[in-house]
Amino acid sequence: MQNGISSAVIRRMPRYYRYLEELLDNGVDRISSGDLSKSMHITASQIRQDLNNFGGFGQQGYGYNVKYLHDEIGKILGLDQRHNIIVIGVGNLGQAISNYVNFDPLGFHMVGLFDVNPALKGKEIRDIPIRMIDELPEFLENHQVDIAALTLPKEKAKEAADLVLSFGVKAIWNFALVDLDVPDDVVVENVHLSDSLMRLSYDISRKNPKEDS
Amino acid sequence: MQNGISSAVIRRMPRYYRYLEELLDNGVDRISSGDLSKSMHITASQIRQDLNNFGGFGQQGYGYNVKYLHDEIGKILGLDQRHNIIVIGVGNLGQAISNYVNFDPLGFHMVGLFDVNPALKGKEIRDIPIRMIDELPEFLENHQVDIAALTLPKEKAKEAADLVLSFGVKAIWNFALVDLDVPDDVVVENVHLSDSLMRLSYDISRKNPKEDS
Repeated sequence: MQNGISSAVIRRMPRYYRYLEELLDNGVDRISSGDLSKSMHITASQIRQDLNNFGGFGQQGYGYNVKYLHDEIGKILGLDQRHNIIVIGVGNLGQAISNYVNFDPLGFHMVGLFDVNPALKGKEIRDIPIRMIDELPEFLENHQVDIAALTLPKEKAKEAADLVLSFGVKAIWNFALVDLDVPDDVVVENVHLSDSLMRLSYDISRKNPKEDS
Repeated sequence: MQNGISSAVIRRMPRYYRYLEELLDNGVDRISSGDLSKSMHITASQIRQDLNNFGGFGQQGYGYNVKYLHDEIGKILGLDQRHNIIVIGVGNLGQAISNYVNFDPLGFHMVGLFDVNPALKGKEIRDIPIRMIDELPEFLENHQVDIAALTLPKEKAKEAADLVLSFGVKAIWNFALVDLDVPDDVVVENVHLSDSLMRLSYDISRKNPKEDS
């Protein structure tokens, strides 16, 4: 596998994938790095550099084969694998994620929903019943779960993380505002909404400096 | 204002802020970069480097004054300013954001909620009424809006962005899976959930390479 690829490059890969998917949907077979550059607002040399991290894909003068590049980037991103997801915490955010239909075509499938609220017990989201959290251990014993999405308050997130890790889940999609300590073979992707707002606020003050008055 | 600070540094600043806030809450007045390093799992030299981008804050041998560092990072992040937010699209995700009580202490305040669904008209989230989207222009004329959160389908996100920009809103918190073209003086912070899942999936395949069998 590739190593030492900067996180900035990795952050751009899903965007490439989305653009190439759109091109495919629009029946585009081949695209030059110049045209890709224009539509993505990334310099052509940046695109070449990014893709060279994974061995290239372009033939000088012929541009990129859209289908091939799309599929190869998909493989790099692991989208050729099925990923089963459980959602722990079925509040607004957990419901939003569970209802999101765009994950399935990417190979991400919700297989279980868990909450502590008895009022939610037995309700369904897209045919998946909401189970109580005490049913989680048995569920994990009997189902292949690749990713646990934690959409619950931060006080409870660590406990939930420990539980799923003890059953061999190796990936956590963490929406709780807490940094999880996990073993080396476990991956965590954080979606911290207030961090995101703070970055936005940083950009706002940089663009519109406060006047000293 | 500071320029040329790498986005990796900026991405870490909200985390520093959160940690320092926790220290403050726990009554810690002063912390060495070594101790901060241990609790944040960032090397002490990285911390010094990061903070040097903004002029330092540490006195050799005395560690950091937690309150001072917290407040200064807050200013860097623009948290000393009030930010009014409107949410366009009050589905599950929009509701999740609107209900999130942790934004207020950071100076981010929801002031308006908009949707196209007549069934939502007049309902309230934390005392803010949900308005119909055709009331948005009048609202923008009469209220200070600093940030528009777009939590609506991507087909409608561009149109909504154009509308708020035409009324002088300079910052967009974009949850729609579309890359927005905006003028230079406008900032966009994207929260693309499926991109996030793809990065997680990339990390999963890197840690657990497929066996060739």
